[in-house]
Amino acid sequence: MAGEVRVAWEALHEFTKEVFIRVGMPPEDAEAEAGALIWANLRGVDSHGVLRIPWYVENVDKGVMNPRPNIQVLKETPATMLVEADRALGPVVTIFVVNRVVEKAKKVGIGWALIRNLTHQGALGYYSQMMANKDMAGIVFVCNPPNMAPYGARVAGVHNSPIAISVPAKRHRPLNLDMATSVVAGGKIWLAVDKGIPIPEGWALDKDGKPTTDPKKVEALLPVGGPKGSGLALMFECLSSVMAGNPVLEPALLGREAETSEEGKKVEAIGERLSYVPRHIQNSVVAAIDISTFTDVESYKEHIDNLIDGLKALPKAEGFTEIFVPGEPEERTFEERSRSGIPLPEGTVRNLRSVAERFGVKLPPGL
Amino acid sequence: MAGEVRVAWEALHEFTKEVFIRVGMPPEDAEAEAGALIWANLRGVDSHGVLRIPWYVENVDKGVMNPRPNIQVLKETPATMLVEADRALGPVVTIFVVNRVVEKAKKVGIGWALIRNLTHQGALGYYSQMMANKDMAGIVFVCNPPNMAPYGARVAGVHNSPIAISVPAKRHRPLNLDMATSVVAGGKIWLAVDKGIPIPEGWALDKDGKPTTDPKKVEALLPVGGPKGSGLALMFECLSSVMAGNPVLEPALLGREAETSEEGKKVEAIGERLSYVPRHIQNSVVAAIDISTFTDVESYKEHIDNLIDGLKALPKAEGFTEIFVPGEPEERTFEERSRSGIPLPEGTVRNLRSVAERFGVKLPPGL
Repeated sequence: MAGEVRVAWEALHEFTKEVFIRVGMPPEDAEAEAGALIWANLRGVDSHGVLRIPWYVENVDKGVMNPRPNIQVLKETPATMLVEADRALGPVVTIFVVNRVVEKAKKVGIGWALIRNLTHQGALGYYSQMMANKDMAGIVFVCNPPNMAPYGARVAGVHNSPIAISVPAKRHRPLNLDMATSVVAGGKIWLAVDKGIPIPEGWALDKDGKPTTDPKKVEALLPVGGPKGSGLALMFECLSSVMAGNPVLEPALLGREAETSEEGKKVEAIGERLSYVPRHIQNSVVAAIDISTFTDVESYKEHIDNLIDGLKALPKAEGFTEIFVPGEPEERTFEERSRSGIPLPEGTVRNLRSVAERFGVKLPPGL
Repeated sequence: MAGEVRVAWEALHEFTKEVFIRVGMPPEDAEAEAGALIWANLRGVDSHGVLRIPWYVENVDKGVMNPRPNIQVLKETPATMLVEADRALGPVVTIFVVNRVVEKAKKVGIGWALIRNLTHQGALGYYSQMMANKDMAGIVFVCNPPNMAPYGARVAGVHNSPIAISVPAKRHRPLNLDMATSVVAGGKIWLAVDKGIPIPEGWALDKDGKPTTDPKKVEALLPVGGPKGSGLALMFECLSSVMAGNPVLEPALLGREAETSEEGKKVEAIGERLSYVPRHIQNSVVAAIDISTFTDVESYKEHIDNLIDGLKALPKAEGFTEIFVPGEPEERTFEERSRSGIPLPEGTVRNLRSVAERFGVKLPPGL
């Protein structure tokens, strides 16, 4: 692509880590954050990669994201925990929790954690896959303030809460489903804005609640499958935010009247853009299920291999040359980018240069 | 509706229970089965109600469904259990498991059970709501042999595995999401066949893998949201059947060659019709999460009330006069039918009469 630069992932990782250290994070936390972002870039999920660095910096500046959080386990049983993230950046608290739920699962078969008050968890598949790599089934979902119209409404009322589920295979890479409950993830709207192209009807609504094909006019995403995506998103809020005593949909819904001011409208700006407002708070469920509690792990992985092989061998639908299992296209990108580097568009390069300058961090070769 | 008869639910319940006793089930199991079927009818989910009675009887006759199962807890931890259902009818084993996971959740915050080798679990929302009524969040999903085309395939390869999630409210009825991972549940195809009306394009494929509007030609349902519904269905199989050491998709996928015989084609007949073949085996996950482990139960329920009120007060989309939360339309039907009786179409009445005759069971007044 014109103006695109390829950067080796290792150098980009080092750069990212260094920036987060300068932002005030302990080195191990900066390492966690860099790992999550580079993983997303390597898999082609660029909306959750290094393009976010300037935004993270801005949010730390504003005091929204906390580079030195006091993460606390508020409640705990052998199988569950409730964790206060103190506005930690997502990967910092989530990796801590992943390790703890895996320990619990090894002891009692399942570990089920609620995290409250984290900020931007990033690509959820990162954490579920981490659990799959430890012979667990991993489940993660997260809730934010509203950016999606519930079925039947013409304004946002639920979040397009994503869910990731991963399980390990033997010959194959882990199955890794990572999906939003909207027709498309917010990142696809961003991308259309950046490319100056229209979006298909059915993805989103404008400020009048009408279907729009102009990505700049998007005010509310639409749920996948109408009441299904809408219902899943709502139930995720009930299982995470409300259960953690920290609802994020309810205050937004009940505060609607007050929020029709100009400032309020900004708060309600939709899609991933909501992340840019100070109220950027998330709650998440992170769960690990220990396969060996129920069945033989090696045999489990062989079954998953067979399942993958069987699905891929099915007769293709018209217009398809290959059937992909969840996470497979991203794994291909991962292989390619691990070898050939991560492509960064001009805008991202420009932003990273200015971050580098501000913090006096050396840019990766090529940038 | 022409030829429709209204029957009081209590009488229909008694009749149903009596039939299942004559079929060979212990009275308390027959009671469980009747409870699940009548609940579905009361909520308007007639595809999972008493119309299934003749089919259950047939499956018990064939030895597919076991009226006297030896239900065994094969493995157990304080938080998890693996249960062998011995081809029990769904409600019999599932209600047993619901009670056990609720006990576990009360002790360690969560109870997560896998049930293997059950037959026809029925309306999943019945069990999740049962847990909500005990101040739990309830989650249930189930996997069957393939009836849905994975994204990119033109034949069935996954099941349209449904999931139900319920949580309690205070003033309101529990939120109760109960959805298939296909565009529409198999029951809607049945209904179109019964009514002799076409189905919209996008619901299903015919035997050549082409979109069909003829409900009689349906061979594979289509997943909701393409890769999303398809991916969720696949991951549910990985979390239930494969985890329970009893895969149901894999054997069907790997045995495809053998199944192109005439007999095999019958096996692959799609939609809920798959249930009619002897291989009718299901595996399920049943989970309870104890709200009081994480937060104050009364406060939780008030938050859910507020959430419901807030959502329902949102500005409506064009063509909508009301916004419904998950389970709400069914609750309205429940209220109405509890008062005015359950309407049964001619065909169902005829079938129930012949069941009554066979077993010498007295029909409910009006039938």
